[in-house]
Amino acid sequence: MTDTRWLSDAEQRDWVRFAAVLELLPAALDLQLTRDEHLTHFDYFTLAMLSEAPERTLRTSALAARTNATLPRLSRVLTRLEGEGFIARSPVVEDRRATNVTLTDAGWDKVVQAAPGHVGNVRSLVLDALSAEQVEQLGAISAALLTRLDPDGRMFASET
Amino acid sequence: MTDTRWLSDAEQRDWVRFAAVLELLPAALDLQLTRDEHLTHFDYFTLAMLSEAPERTLRTSALAARTNATLPRLSRVLTRLEGEGFIARSPVVEDRRATNVTLTDAGWDKVVQAAPGHVGNVRSLVLDALSAEQVEQLGAISAALLTRLDPDGRMFASET
Repeated sequence: MTDTRWLSDAEQRDWVRFAAVLELLPAALDLQLTRDEHLTHFDYFTLAMLSEAPERTLRTSALAARTNATLPRLSRVLTRLEGEGFIARSPVVEDRRATNVTLTDAGWDKVVQAAPGHVGNVRSLVLDALSAEQVEQLGAISAALLTRLDPDGRMFASET
Repeated sequence: MTDTRWLSDAEQRDWVRFAAVLELLPAALDLQLTRDEHLTHFDYFTLAMLSEAPERTLRTSALAARTNATLPRLSRVLTRLEGEGFIARSPVVEDRRATNVTLTDAGWDKVVQAAPGHVGNVRSLVLDALSAEQVEQLGAISAALLTRLDPDGRMFASET
């Protein structure tokens, strides 16, 4: 590739800052949830998405779209969450190849218990650090990035 | 906590979009680099930071600040990169507790080989998806988030 468009100094500065956020923010979200609830941020997000679904149940494929996960990654996490009693899996009657994932009562209680600390952390690390205008900008920027990261719009966040 | 400030619908929508970017973008950066260069994004970033340092050398503590890493995490990666011949470690003469990390010639060649594909990917996934104004907004938003994620300003990206 002889036609590389290298980053300008300003682009490099902005990208290095954003790359630092990409490293530090997921680690900070994981830190609070593992310390206080023995959940990763991905675990929490998975349980939270089920808690908002009708009958607290989603097909595995729909849950993968809501959690921005590949099926193999999600399956590994579901096996662990099932072992901890937070979710249960059952075959879909109308489609024998599909599986339903349901939040158990223990999983519901876990989300209810974990939510205030996690939401407080998101406010403190992200929303309270930004002006209302910047939060809107970040939403629009994220939507634009999702058109590249998820070009077929398979993920839930790309639809909204 | 009875005083949880739950997210508004608009905040929830913006946060879900940004959380999707936090999941998908690091995975997409890793995918290109592991596929084409057998490097994670963190490996690449570590080698690139060394390539820009005087004499291609940094103390471990300074390299950790440039890569937004904890020392244990960085040490694990350095052991692997040393095994692949891309870096070498040596004691600091003036401070026996400190270690210098130096990019080898093979490590330099690796960065030079990997850079065009990685920069092209950053352009395609991030910079080309945004207007020039949005890139500036993202830089300012990231700087604001770093004041929360790195309150003591220990990381390199917080200084710039």
